[in-house]
Amino acid sequence: MATYDDQNIFAKILRGELPAFKVFENDHTFAFMDIMPRSPGHTLVIPKAPARNLLDISEADFLEVARTTRHIAPAAMKAFAADGLIIQQFSEPASGQVVFHLHMHIMPVKEGVPLLPPQSRKEDFKVLEEHAARLIAALKG
Amino acid sequence: MATYDDQNIFAKILRGELPAFKVFENDHTFAFMDIMPRSPGHTLVIPKAPARNLLDISEADFLEVARTTRHIAPAAMKAFAADGLIIQQFSEPASGQVVFHLHMHIMPVKEGVPLLPPQSRKEDFKVLEEHAARLIAALKG
Repeated sequence: MATYDDQNIFAKILRGELPAFKVFENDHTFAFMDIMPRSPGHTLVIPKAPARNLLDISEADFLEVARTTRHIAPAAMKAFAADGLIIQQFSEPASGQVVFHLHMHIMPVKEGVPLLPPQSRKEDFKVLEEHAARLIAALKG
Repeated sequence: MATYDDQNIFAKILRGELPAFKVFENDHTFAFMDIMPRSPGHTLVIPKAPARNLLDISEADFLEVARTTRHIAPAAMKAFAADGLIIQQFSEPASGQVVFHLHMHIMPVKEGVPLLPPQSRKEDFKVLEEHAARLIAALKG
């Protein structure tokens, strides 16, 4: 397995070198809207620690990602009036991983509405901003 | 959301009322081969505590599921000579959840080989037995 490359786009987001539609942050994790959402409200949770994927992340850091994922899940259901939720995480190119900083996908789903294919459409930034605001409000409420 | 129904098949596996190709167990979690694998080595991790999915599991129990998932991940890569790994968890029918006891899917993948569709083919029990033995050996080694 390749080693961690700190020039990946999520590392740049964590360093503030690239913008993101942030929805949650604590000492160990950061969560933001996926700019190519497979469903409305598609959110990513990443560790602040450098980790390529599930095969090199420390146990402590992965548990923090899991904790934040669970924290966001019910808020995502509420914010996007979802009927269900899919979480997914890819390790290595063969799995479909394209950004090599571990990220957990949280995808709210509606009954009968399939997910869009991965990386199929970049969402309008105004929509992402509004979705982030909705999820932040649900996390507070 | 419906409440937890203790007649689901994973609850029966936990109570020993149904058999399973077990690969790992600790105080809080149980892991076994999916009998309808989407890839060779497809493994499920479940909490021993009753939880329908990510929307009702306790934080402590979900962290235990995450801990066991991470523990199994590198062994699954090794046991099935995989090039990558997909983890996935579904909450509620709209997401594709069909057994209503939380389960994390661990699916080893090979470069260029797509996952089978969900619930498409029941695997031969001799194959599952051999796969479980391979994964148990990798977990020990």
